[in-house]
Amino acid sequence: MEQVKLYDTTLRDGMGGHGMSLSVGEKLKVVLALDALGVQFIEAGFPSSNPKEAELFERLAELELENATIAAFGMTRRSGVAAAEDPALETLVGSFAPVVCLVGKSWRLHLEKVIRVPEEENLAMIRDSIAFCRGEGKRTIFDAEHFFDGYRDDSNFALECVRTAAEAGAENVTLCDTNGGSLPSFVGEATAAAVAAVGDGVEIGIHTHNDAECAVANSLAAVEAGARLVQGTVNGYGERCGNANLASILPALQLKMGFGVVSQEQLANLAPTAHYLDELCNMTPDPDQAYVGRNAFAHKAGMHAAGVAADASTFEHLDPAQVGNDREILASELSGKATIRAQAQQAGLELDDEAAVRAVERLKEREHRGYHYEAAQASFELLLRQEAGSYAPLFKLESFRVTTEKRADGEVETEATIKVEVDGERYVRVAEGNGPVNALDRALRAAIADRYPHLGDIELTNYKVRILDESHGTGAITRVLLDSSNRDREWGTIGVSENIIEASWEALVDSLEYAFQPR
Amino acid sequence: MEQVKLYDTTLRDGMGGHGMSLSVGEKLKVVLALDALGVQFIEAGFPSSNPKEAELFERLAELELENATIAAFGMTRRSGVAAAEDPALETLVGSFAPVVCLVGKSWRLHLEKVIRVPEEENLAMIRDSIAFCRGEGKRTIFDAEHFFDGYRDDSNFALECVRTAAEAGAENVTLCDTNGGSLPSFVGEATAAAVAAVGDGVEIGIHTHNDAECAVANSLAAVEAGARLVQGTVNGYGERCGNANLASILPALQLKMGFGVVSQEQLANLAPTAHYLDELCNMTPDPDQAYVGRNAFAHKAGMHAAGVAADASTFEHLDPAQVGNDREILASELSGKATIRAQAQQAGLELDDEAAVRAVERLKEREHRGYHYEAAQASFELLLRQEAGSYAPLFKLESFRVTTEKRADGEVETEATIKVEVDGERYVRVAEGNGPVNALDRALRAAIADRYPHLGDIELTNYKVRILDESHGTGAITRVLLDSSNRDREWGTIGVSENIIEASWEALVDSLEYAFQPR
Repeated sequence: MEQVKLYDTTLRDGMGGHGMSLSVGEKLKVVLALDALGVQFIEAGFPSSNPKEAELFERLAELELENATIAAFGMTRRSGVAAAEDPALETLVGSFAPVVCLVGKSWRLHLEKVIRVPEEENLAMIRDSIAFCRGEGKRTIFDAEHFFDGYRDDSNFALECVRTAAEAGAENVTLCDTNGGSLPSFVGEATAAAVAAVGDGVEIGIHTHNDAECAVANSLAAVEAGARLVQGTVNGYGERCGNANLASILPALQLKMGFGVVSQEQLANLAPTAHYLDELCNMTPDPDQAYVGRNAFAHKAGMHAAGVAADASTFEHLDPAQVGNDREILASELSGKATIRAQAQQAGLELDDEAAVRAVERLKEREHRGYHYEAAQASFELLLRQEAGSYAPLFKLESFRVTTEKRADGEVETEATIKVEVDGERYVRVAEGNGPVNALDRALRAAIADRYPHLGDIELTNYKVRILDESHGTGAITRVLLDSSNRDREWGTIGVSENIIEASWEALVDSLEYAFQPR
Repeated sequence: MEQVKLYDTTLRDGMGGHGMSLSVGEKLKVVLALDALGVQFIEAGFPSSNPKEAELFERLAELELENATIAAFGMTRRSGVAAAEDPALETLVGSFAPVVCLVGKSWRLHLEKVIRVPEEENLAMIRDSIAFCRGEGKRTIFDAEHFFDGYRDDSNFALECVRTAAEAGAENVTLCDTNGGSLPSFVGEATAAAVAAVGDGVEIGIHTHNDAECAVANSLAAVEAGARLVQGTVNGYGERCGNANLASILPALQLKMGFGVVSQEQLANLAPTAHYLDELCNMTPDPDQAYVGRNAFAHKAGMHAAGVAADASTFEHLDPAQVGNDREILASELSGKATIRAQAQQAGLELDDEAAVRAVERLKEREHRGYHYEAAQASFELLLRQEAGSYAPLFKLESFRVTTEKRADGEVETEATIKVEVDGERYVRVAEGNGPVNALDRALRAAIADRYPHLGDIELTNYKVRILDESHGTGAITRVLLDSSNRDREWGTIGVSENIIEASWEALVDSLEYAFQPR
């Protein structure tokens, strides 16, 4: 079976997406999730001396990955400077990453209007930079920026850039539709020309953007024309209309076009991985997303549902399980029960048959209300514990009140009062905080600290809020995701309510309770 | 110039989309908007005797349309019943609609597993039904359901269905990728075979779904292979992953492939039309949508912005004005004085040199504190206005207080009190809400409503919260992004503070102030 490799650029090109913002810790989680999915290359960005990037590369260097190779991203040398003396190239080859991806121009219009460099010098920039990186022991990918616009404008020059990169030692030349406006038949034609230009031994890659809503099809057209590496981002994160969506490209390549990309088991984890990445990036999963969306295999009752019952292939283009998704109408209680019991076992819990049925019912009801346990395994475990009878509440809440006041002098003050009962004893505490959730957290800890002295080890590390029904703004259902950690581990909890304070409270209580469950 | 026609099925296939629900009045508005856009056919659904559908067809019959012809949708006759005696066909031809669209099977698997009809009878059902409709004076389109799966399974039989429809008098045979899983090169190949099968005089159409994220590309591949009518929905409404998005297909056909579809003026109204339809359907416009999305032509400051300034074609696949969209230059840490002044100009503001320097300084300082204006252009414009001296505050805040209480009975109550001054007059108001931000929003609106009666038009459509420094959990800096809209447009605002209430307040005030700035 012929292989096609995936090259994920969420951490570089994807970060240009609207509202994308990831901490170093979140970026590492993205890398681990992509690695588990079987992605072959993960582009981590430019390893600059900026402390955040430096920390990322330091921590990546220590990470043990199963499948993926980390790529560092940079540009060809500046005009008129020797490659070895270009400080950015020096930084690039100085990073631990075994692969570097160099971007350079291949469109004459950009030479004239943007970088103002003659054609010969552009070719030399490509040649020198790749040769330098190769000389420093790096595997090198060349990203031919604006290749398709360049090919449309002057195919000879665009191909000359590609050929130069191949001859200089790039193992892969990736053709970029940087402005995203090309259509598939043209992409196929231009890719075939590039494949012919580099000859055997150098691989062609494809990098597209979704400005014509054709990024997926353009990537597939390039593979049909001989490209064997696809750059993009899982879920299509990226500036403007996004990068090519690897979550759609992967199943098409593997299930429809017969290429080998990842293992069947990895592919069967596609939908949960895509949703997990959305949670990390604080993006709302698109319910209508191809292959992985909640509605992707939803069948209306009636003829569709009957057809699916007779033979699912009548109304489904593939088996949803192959991509880790579910068929909505046939979500059978049995398979739900089995999965739940397996998950309980993983958490060291025994669920009998009745408890498993109850857990499935509660889970369904909660998911209907907006709970989503992919990034909140601790809350999920608490739910299972409640059904398994091995749940021990930390305290009994009587009431709380939290007040935020912006005073006439501009100062903001927040204060929470809480009344709880622990082991029959009543505690009333008040605490200030720099926000309502912080104040509640402090007041609760003050109230139960006598009984749970190790509370101080638990730190809340991340807090995210999203509105679930976008049509109602601040009056809609609010979902809070909270990450916590102590010395040993990290865990995620969730709260859902109309009221952000109530949702936060729920996630907060789950966070502390999870830490103190008997194990 | 060769023509391609658009056939919008929002009111029929599109209604299967998640959350789609339109009153008769809204459906008429959809029809008028599509007609103004220049769409050639509008499918209104099945003209059944159900009162809502009956009313729709009655009112459609009275509507004067400039460009579009209304099509009524139905199925081929039932097996073993004469066409003239099939009550559904009778209703169909009884409607005023000059065009009927009949759907029938073309996939052997469906004959066997779903409708259990022999091949010959299926062909007779197609033949009789079309002949009957033609005999009743209707222009007839045949939708060959599951054509592509059928062609993959048994190309001869699938083509036989197509040929039968053409011979029976259909003016157009539309090939449907009903399950949405086909890929463009296969769609092109199968379409070419159908074009050859029907010969001259009968037009081939294409109807695709987005299950492989290829609906747009599949439609374009079919047109390249000779199809001359494209069925779909503006914005891609439809069940599962949606129908083919006409808002992406139209500009590709007209601006990239050289077909005539609508007038230039109509095309230049595409983005407002797409947003208006989203509003009618109560869908949140996708900011990253190709061609028409708010971010579709958004450029980061720096090299992109400089390139666009030199020659927009360096970084844009087409002129946004051609599809009724705007170029947006995003603020980012790299913004210099020149970019700021250009951005001010776009907002209709004059910034002198000193003001531009001050704005850059403030922007840098704010970005350092965690402001991020890419998703908050309205807050950015307010900042520019403050420096340009054209900022008019809505009110002067004296103080607010917001309290959330979880009572002993489990009920949660939230209340906000606010004291403001407008034009020298003091207003003190209190409001309840289902969360603190909602309560604050209501209290503020109550306080200033006398002075700003159009406040009611502004709706908060989305609210997102993130912690910026993940090492401090609920005690860290909180960033709130708020999206708002009124009838005409959408805008985004931002607030940053240690305190989530304060950050939300900031975004809220910006949202309202932006709406009321003098323009």
